[in-house]
Amino acid sequence: MTPPVVDAYDAWLGYPALAPGAARDAVRAACGRVTVLGDSPVLREAGRELAVGLESLLGCSVPVSGESGAGDGVWVGTGAVAELAGVETPGPEGFVIAAAGEGAGVAVAGGDDRGCLYGAFALLRRIACGVGLPSEPVSEAPVAPLRMLDHWDNLDGTIERGYAGRSIFFADGEVTRDLARVRDYGRLLASIGVNAIALNNVNVARPAVELITDRHLGAVAQVAAALRPFGVRIALSVNFAGPVLLDGLPSADPRDPAVAQWWRAAAARVYEAVPDLLGFVVKASSEGQPGPHSYGASQAEGANVIAAALAPLGGVVLWRAFVYDCEQDWRDTATDRAKAAYDEFVPLDGAFAPNVAVQIKNGPMDYQVREPVSPLLGAAPETRKLLEVQITQEYTGQQVHACYLVPLWKEVLDFDTHARGPGSTVASTVVAGGDDRALAGMVGVANVGDERNWTGHLLAQANLYGFGRLAWQPSLTAEAIAREWAALTFGLDGTVRDTVTAMLMESREVYESYTTPLGLGWMVTPATHDGPSPEGYEYSRWGTYLRADRDAIGVDRGTARGTGFTAQYHEPWRSIFEDRERCPPQLLLFFHRVGYAELLPSGVTLAQHVYDSHFAGAEAVARFIADWEGLHERIDPGRHGSVARRLEAQRAGAEEWRDVINAYFHRYSGIADAAGRRLY
Amino acid sequence: MTPPVVDAYDAWLGYPALAPGAARDAVRAACGRVTVLGDSPVLREAGRELAVGLESLLGCSVPVSGESGAGDGVWVGTGAVAELAGVETPGPEGFVIAAAGEGAGVAVAGGDDRGCLYGAFALLRRIACGVGLPSEPVSEAPVAPLRMLDHWDNLDGTIERGYAGRSIFFADGEVTRDLARVRDYGRLLASIGVNAIALNNVNVARPAVELITDRHLGAVAQVAAALRPFGVRIALSVNFAGPVLLDGLPSADPRDPAVAQWWRAAAARVYEAVPDLLGFVVKASSEGQPGPHSYGASQAEGANVIAAALAPLGGVVLWRAFVYDCEQDWRDTATDRAKAAYDEFVPLDGAFAPNVAVQIKNGPMDYQVREPVSPLLGAAPETRKLLEVQITQEYTGQQVHACYLVPLWKEVLDFDTHARGPGSTVASTVVAGGDDRALAGMVGVANVGDERNWTGHLLAQANLYGFGRLAWQPSLTAEAIAREWAALTFGLDGTVRDTVTAMLMESREVYESYTTPLGLGWMVTPATHDGPSPEGYEYSRWGTYLRADRDAIGVDRGTARGTGFTAQYHEPWRSIFEDRERCPPQLLLFFHRVGYAELLPSGVTLAQHVYDSHFAGAEAVARFIADWEGLHERIDPGRHGSVARRLEAQRAGAEEWRDVINAYFHRYSGIADAAGRRLY
Repeated sequence: MTPPVVDAYDAWLGYPALAPGAARDAVRAACGRVTVLGDSPVLREAGRELAVGLESLLGCSVPVSGESGAGDGVWVGTGAVAELAGVETPGPEGFVIAAAGEGAGVAVAGGDDRGCLYGAFALLRRIACGVGLPSEPVSEAPVAPLRMLDHWDNLDGTIERGYAGRSIFFADGEVTRDLARVRDYGRLLASIGVNAIALNNVNVARPAVELITDRHLGAVAQVAAALRPFGVRIALSVNFAGPVLLDGLPSADPRDPAVAQWWRAAAARVYEAVPDLLGFVVKASSEGQPGPHSYGASQAEGANVIAAALAPLGGVVLWRAFVYDCEQDWRDTATDRAKAAYDEFVPLDGAFAPNVAVQIKNGPMDYQVREPVSPLLGAAPETRKLLEVQITQEYTGQQVHACYLVPLWKEVLDFDTHARGPGSTVASTVVAGGDDRALAGMVGVANVGDERNWTGHLLAQANLYGFGRLAWQPSLTAEAIAREWAALTFGLDGTVRDTVTAMLMESREVYESYTTPLGLGWMVTPATHDGPSPEGYEYSRWGTYLRADRDAIGVDRGTARGTGFTAQYHEPWRSIFEDRERCPPQLLLFFHRVGYAELLPSGVTLAQHVYDSHFAGAEAVARFIADWEGLHERIDPGRHGSVARRLEAQRAGAEEWRDVINAYFHRYSGIADAAGRRLY
Repeated sequence: MTPPVVDAYDAWLGYPALAPGAARDAVRAACGRVTVLGDSPVLREAGRELAVGLESLLGCSVPVSGESGAGDGVWVGTGAVAELAGVETPGPEGFVIAAAGEGAGVAVAGGDDRGCLYGAFALLRRIACGVGLPSEPVSEAPVAPLRMLDHWDNLDGTIERGYAGRSIFFADGEVTRDLARVRDYGRLLASIGVNAIALNNVNVARPAVELITDRHLGAVAQVAAALRPFGVRIALSVNFAGPVLLDGLPSADPRDPAVAQWWRAAAARVYEAVPDLLGFVVKASSEGQPGPHSYGASQAEGANVIAAALAPLGGVVLWRAFVYDCEQDWRDTATDRAKAAYDEFVPLDGAFAPNVAVQIKNGPMDYQVREPVSPLLGAAPETRKLLEVQITQEYTGQQVHACYLVPLWKEVLDFDTHARGPGSTVASTVVAGGDDRALAGMVGVANVGDERNWTGHLLAQANLYGFGRLAWQPSLTAEAIAREWAALTFGLDGTVRDTVTAMLMESREVYESYTTPLGLGWMVTPATHDGPSPEGYEYSRWGTYLRADRDAIGVDRGTARGTGFTAQYHEPWRSIFEDRERCPPQLLLFFHRVGYAELLPSGVTLAQHVYDSHFAGAEAVARFIADWEGLHERIDPGRHGSVARRLEAQRAGAEEWRDVINAYFHRYSGIADAAGRRLY
């Protein structure tokens, strides 16, 4: 069997041709042409995508037309198509796929134009995944109203924590004029239901401060226009000190009327250029960024002055909750960075304007490979909240190591905060918004750059894909998403699909097993966060301490003698986390200080557990390499080779991690490996 | 008493006015005017300096003239003045100060114009230090023929390991046009006998590669011309891959005739612009710099191809010996970076061209606050060698901490290598050149930038001053140099002079006492080398490992079970260093692996020694602050305040170092402090 040759640039939209046979014939019979009812840029994209996709999948010509009398083929549109199919018109962004009334065709009926586009991609996905056409009407609507990516792209073209080349939006201090790539990106986003992106880094340094001035707004408007046909709105990150930096106001105090006026003027200017702008993203009084704290004002006062300027224009403020003391004294054992966001924002509950959402990282620290769910996600009920996750692999292998993050995000989405009693999952409360869907959803920090395959590591495309699918429907399993992605990317060869799915599903725990153990976190090289440096952060100001000595390692975060962090959780979590027997084993060292010689529930000492997991982790990578090599004839050489090279680099990285972390535990503990393997 | 107000820009050449009295009157009587016999730019500087200095010191007008009939005043010149004074004409760069024949005047007779200039500064130094005029002729000549500073200045104006602002030679990719500052720098250099400087960083990246092209040579020539009246020649650092980078040759292989031709053309071009250029400084096959190893050629072949191009022009190659494996695997315990330079260069002894000097760092590692003397300084007898020390305080407090380095350099100069039996000190062999003075001397990495006071920390001026004085005369004591500097800088107030001298003399051991102990080295933050990060380099590629575990710390560098580094020393050092009882205590952890609980000769455990020294070190800084405060009325507020602020910063830094290093030893060892002080 000759494998399909797909340009990695097409990612999961390469639409590898279906094998000839009855299944293909059935689709061909039903989908021989595309009829778009209505006209708009978004509808045109839906029609175009269906034609391109069907032609590629089916290997035949698929013409597109406007209204026509015939009943066969694919019908796309809103109310009229729903009527045709005899289904109810779906809600906003939703769609139904059904038999198109009495004819032999298929109806894709959207609740609005965007719903049509999402429905078109969904139909193509079904066909490409071999699911075929539905026998009964299939209805979908997104769970998260806002499904957004934050780009940490800088105006000079670099990307903070970017591992896939340079920005597709900025270069050399200017907004890109390469709108073809932007449009192609918009198509990728639409295919997974992402409906908003922030273009620029939340750390808004000069010259990006000027992005909201006439110097750049014309070009920003062009980018917004390029994305609009794909249903993607843009947001901009702004600097809280904008009034000072751009116009020399004496302060950026949010209670100063001149500051409020400045934000009104800035908002008016930006909305004139981009009338459907989502709003502003703000990182304030955080990691050296200016903010309301500089003026003795609260985070709510800071957010509200900008929110007031945006409200009349329909804009929102996406206000990051990543606020902590980044000038901590390592000698201070009372302060616990894990507590910071909750301590900062819970007292402000109810104080934020209605068009402010507080954007909360999934964990209380910072995107480690294993953290508990942030307790703030189960708190502050009167505050509109967004879940923020990191797609770019800052702490999870920097797109050199394979690390499929959907299982991690699933744990967060499925976590029952007990905020309103049992059943208060993060998915149902924060992401879906519970009863209040006005401003709820999920934000992911993008992993995309200008490399040909968008994400550097081809397998990292699965994270981008998975983010969108999960924000759309958090009840999808990580495995189902992986299987979808594998089929869309590599075709329907069962061996490929099974192998890739299995590798993805294992990859996060494999990465974890040879890096920082049991939720301990922070054993990375400072600044780059690449590779191991177990005590690189131990005496620093960042609040990230292991507190290792010759007897034990980790911080007790319980209430009795610990930092009291567990008190931020609703029961039963508080009791569970505090109880070393009931604490989830993989989070043991996040919540507890444990002796190297202590026996874990598995029956081995902590030190031995570390050795075992680290040797096993590096071995698993060797297994990945062998498994991937087994697909040699089944994947085109370009894509096969690029993944193979990353896996080799991962192997070297895994061995380095293994040996450093094992050495670290061995040197402190003096405990030999029971299996007699080499420790340094 | 009102303290003299001196602009820190004048450094030790502010010439504070002498107090009225008999001593001043005696000098006034003898030195009321200056007569320069002969004419040259250098002689004119000698006359000008004498007039300026004497006027300021004596508080009266001191006219300068050419030849005249009268016998009083200061006479400066070469042979004629020697005759006048009835003394023998000194050798090159030397001078005699004596009564000027039958008259009441003073003769400064130089062996050449440069000797006259040095003699002029020497006379002024005597007067400013209160030594007065000599009753018997005083004769001096420099011990080191080459007394040179290496600037690590980049073309963009930054300075690698610079802690005193930006470059005085380069800005924004161009050679400076501010020749006034260059001239003032030349005057400082002449006053301490420095006779050469390398303008640019030994790490020659683009665009500095182009410094030896017509793009910059005109401006380089201007700098050379500005320094020439002060007897200072310039050198340039060049990139070994110049033939490839500048002219696209296929290789820089030193055995390629086209490469040899390229270097000849480059040398001719540079010497046309600067005919008295000293030569080229080269860092090759070192820390990522290109070099002969890339072509399978030796360091000698690399140096010689450039030397051959320079020889007909009278130029030399200053070839750095700082070659080691900077891609070491931390797991590799056989490789010892300390051995690298010796292993590289000793087999090449005799292979270097006569106009090549191998420039050797004082220690085998890299400018730690305490290292043994590099064994290469006592080896390779057929190789011309230069001693390289670091004036800029990379590892010694970055010009925030006070750290007078002259005692460290003295240890190196006075070290008896036993290369030719007892009495083979580094000073007499390498720096003075033994019997071969053609190419011998001492090179210091400069600590100067564009800050008003040149060195950031005012007390760091003493290091620049001390470097020059020591290269001139290595037998001067560190204390004598400190006392000179204190008097020249602050005047003759005995309290100030004693306090400053004592502080300087203590400062290096104080710095050592709260930082890395007993020659262990490398507990600094990677990359910046600022502040403590005990294991920041532990798992890195730089060959700098502590190998700490719960029992012991350090690397055994002996021959029996260690790395064999000690075998690079002549006896008795080899035996002394290998013997834990005889090894100099302050180098114990350089040569030996020692248990935390082991008793040191002082009778306390290693851990307790670390605690004691670190607490004592931080207390000593507090004492410095009190002592300095005691000089409040005795030093002008500008200079007093600037040092006071640095001392406060040093206190904070010392406390941080103290607590981190103590915590590190405590966590590993579990040994409590016998005095019950706080460990973290």
